[in-house]
Amino acid sequence: MKKIIIFGSTGSIGKNALQVVRQSREKFKILGLSTNGDVKTLYKQIKEFSPKYVCVRNENAANAIKCELGKNCKLFKGDIGLEEFSKLESDISVMAISGVACLRPLLVNIRHTKRIALANKESLVTAGELVFNEAKRFNTEIFPIDSEINALFQLLPVTNRESKLNDSFRKIYLTASGGALADYKKQDLDKVSVKQVLNHPTWKMGKRITVDSATLMNKGFEVIESHYFFDIPYDKIDIVIHKESVVHALVEYKDETIFACMYPPNMCIPISFALYYPERFNCEGKSLISKRTRLLKNKNGFSCSFYPIKYNKYPILKIILQSARKKDNSLVVLNACDEIAIDYFLKNKIKFTDITRVIKFIFNRYPSSKITDINDVFYWDDWGRIKTKEYLNKL
Amino acid sequence: MKKIIIFGSTGSIGKNALQVVRQSREKFKILGLSTNGDVKTLYKQIKEFSPKYVCVRNENAANAIKCELGKNCKLFKGDIGLEEFSKLESDISVMAISGVACLRPLLVNIRHTKRIALANKESLVTAGELVFNEAKRFNTEIFPIDSEINALFQLLPVTNRESKLNDSFRKIYLTASGGALADYKKQDLDKVSVKQVLNHPTWKMGKRITVDSATLMNKGFEVIESHYFFDIPYDKIDIVIHKESVVHALVEYKDETIFACMYPPNMCIPISFALYYPERFNCEGKSLISKRTRLLKNKNGFSCSFYPIKYNKYPILKIILQSARKKDNSLVVLNACDEIAIDYFLKNKIKFTDITRVIKFIFNRYPSSKITDINDVFYWDDWGRIKTKEYLNKL
Repeated sequence: MKKIIIFGSTGSIGKNALQVVRQSREKFKILGLSTNGDVKTLYKQIKEFSPKYVCVRNENAANAIKCELGKNCKLFKGDIGLEEFSKLESDISVMAISGVACLRPLLVNIRHTKRIALANKESLVTAGELVFNEAKRFNTEIFPIDSEINALFQLLPVTNRESKLNDSFRKIYLTASGGALADYKKQDLDKVSVKQVLNHPTWKMGKRITVDSATLMNKGFEVIESHYFFDIPYDKIDIVIHKESVVHALVEYKDETIFACMYPPNMCIPISFALYYPERFNCEGKSLISKRTRLLKNKNGFSCSFYPIKYNKYPILKIILQSARKKDNSLVVLNACDEIAIDYFLKNKIKFTDITRVIKFIFNRYPSSKITDINDVFYWDDWGRIKTKEYLNKL
Repeated sequence: MKKIIIFGSTGSIGKNALQVVRQSREKFKILGLSTNGDVKTLYKQIKEFSPKYVCVRNENAANAIKCELGKNCKLFKGDIGLEEFSKLESDISVMAISGVACLRPLLVNIRHTKRIALANKESLVTAGELVFNEAKRFNTEIFPIDSEINALFQLLPVTNRESKLNDSFRKIYLTASGGALADYKKQDLDKVSVKQVLNHPTWKMGKRITVDSATLMNKGFEVIESHYFFDIPYDKIDIVIHKESVVHALVEYKDETIFACMYPPNMCIPISFALYYPERFNCEGKSLISKRTRLLKNKNGFSCSFYPIKYNKYPILKIILQSARKKDNSLVVLNACDEIAIDYFLKNKIKFTDITRVIKFIFNRYPSSKITDINDVFYWDDWGRIKTKEYLNKL
């Protein structure tokens, strides 16, 4: 029986992780659950999974739930509580806290668990080197949950047979659906509504990541994740447009052979991979995937298409890839900027195209500096937020 | 410098193998070439590749070329010559003799080479166990050239990480284009011409295999090859219709994850894999693939589709899969029957649908018996040929 802690259990990934655990009661026991402030959802989860420990970061929300917990469930609250909660010993931790706020609990928790199933992108984008150095130091496995990176993680044993970085290996490709606005013309982007941007064709995800999928900021983040996870240079990482979101990543060799990893677009699959490895979850007869979508048995068949990406169509992606190669504080600053800008956009305070505008503005003006520890990350994160708000409030 | 012998150098696979060697003069040296009787093509190949040894199985043809060879090239002729030729020591042998005639030189050559790049299907269909037992005994690698089996060979390291036969693994899928007659109605098959059957949509191959692609006999053979190559039970091997012939095989896990191996439909790629392994041929800037078809860089993109196979549409395939599970002499008999029937069809002596008719007839009447050695194979091969001719001559 493996003990599991889910950081961010009330979000989209957290709920999917609990769906996997729900189907695997004989293998996994929930030890802890954490939320930022959604105590209503957390309370339901506590009733179902009976964790020994829960954590609510928002103190007011924490106080609201406090009296409802029985004496068998210990509550941690606030940032200090989250840090203590991160020190609990587990077999597997699912890291699904959103944004750069995941970084501190992640770095603490690496020392207290055997395996981290990592959904959060921002911690690697802002501090990939720090995270992997700590994981190495404490001999903690990090498994990617993000479908594209998870697909690469599954594919790379093929390449390992011949050492992935020898010259047989040409490139890895991340697939991109192109997001909700793939078919929009440039001149129409000024007018797109929040609803239009949130209407992702294939994946159901959180709001920020859905907006990031439309700008392909998201895909830029995945390029960076791949770079850190597999130690692959940026010029060997490419993107291909694949609207069906069935193939998640491809590995190409110099002899024109390509390996692809595919599964239906449902986050339960990569999550179950990270929890079950080296075994695999058996979907047969289970309701892990609510709608049965076994690709090769669908009587209507299925098809998938691949097109080279037009980088010029995605200015934010271009900037993020430039930024990645700098290996300085720019990714931290731009991530903060993106988060604030999307928040403004979701609140209808700015237009969709203003996200690009402010990212360009900040990228051209930030003072370059090295990231050497976690305090640098938070310093430049704050700096990015302040400068972005200053700019957006003037629009 | 690796010494290579090509058995069947004047056929379609043999020519492709020489095309790979032509692009890799610094790595490979042709030691020997063999043909059944196409001495005109062989002579050109001798002039270009200067082999020390050549073999012509047809004695008349051998005598015709004899006087044209210089003293630096030794000629072997007839069946006895072929057996002596098979005893030459090489680093790699490409086995591209067609039909069951490949079996004897293959079994002899296994003892005298380090690696066999095997294109011939009939030797495994009729005597898979004998071949792999010999290879094990003499520690000889056998690499499949056939694109579907080659793709599986490349894919299975992924599965090996978790032991391919544990219960994580659900199925392997061979792709089938459906052949030249995929879109024909059943009632029209009586009237199809040789030309129509030979018009394969995606692959350029020899005549028999092109007809076998239309009946899917070919795919049945590949199921059997997969069974022997990877020791996978028949109920874990399936077929999926994939018209584009870009994906050659897929491996499916019980968690719905599928791995695919793809390359453009050009035999040079799997041949180069077998010759270069563990390295890979670099296609960049070479003319291995005459028309540049780098899948993920094609500016028009590419797409591929997958449909479950309708087994009822392919009666020969159904029979061959039934036959495979019997583990008796039926595959030998049916292979002989198919070869004769196709020969009659190509000579316009029978209709396309008569191939199915005679295979059904023979399958329902052959006397079941075990295959214990190579003599059994040739006995039942002869039996199948005689009975097939008797039946067809009466039509």
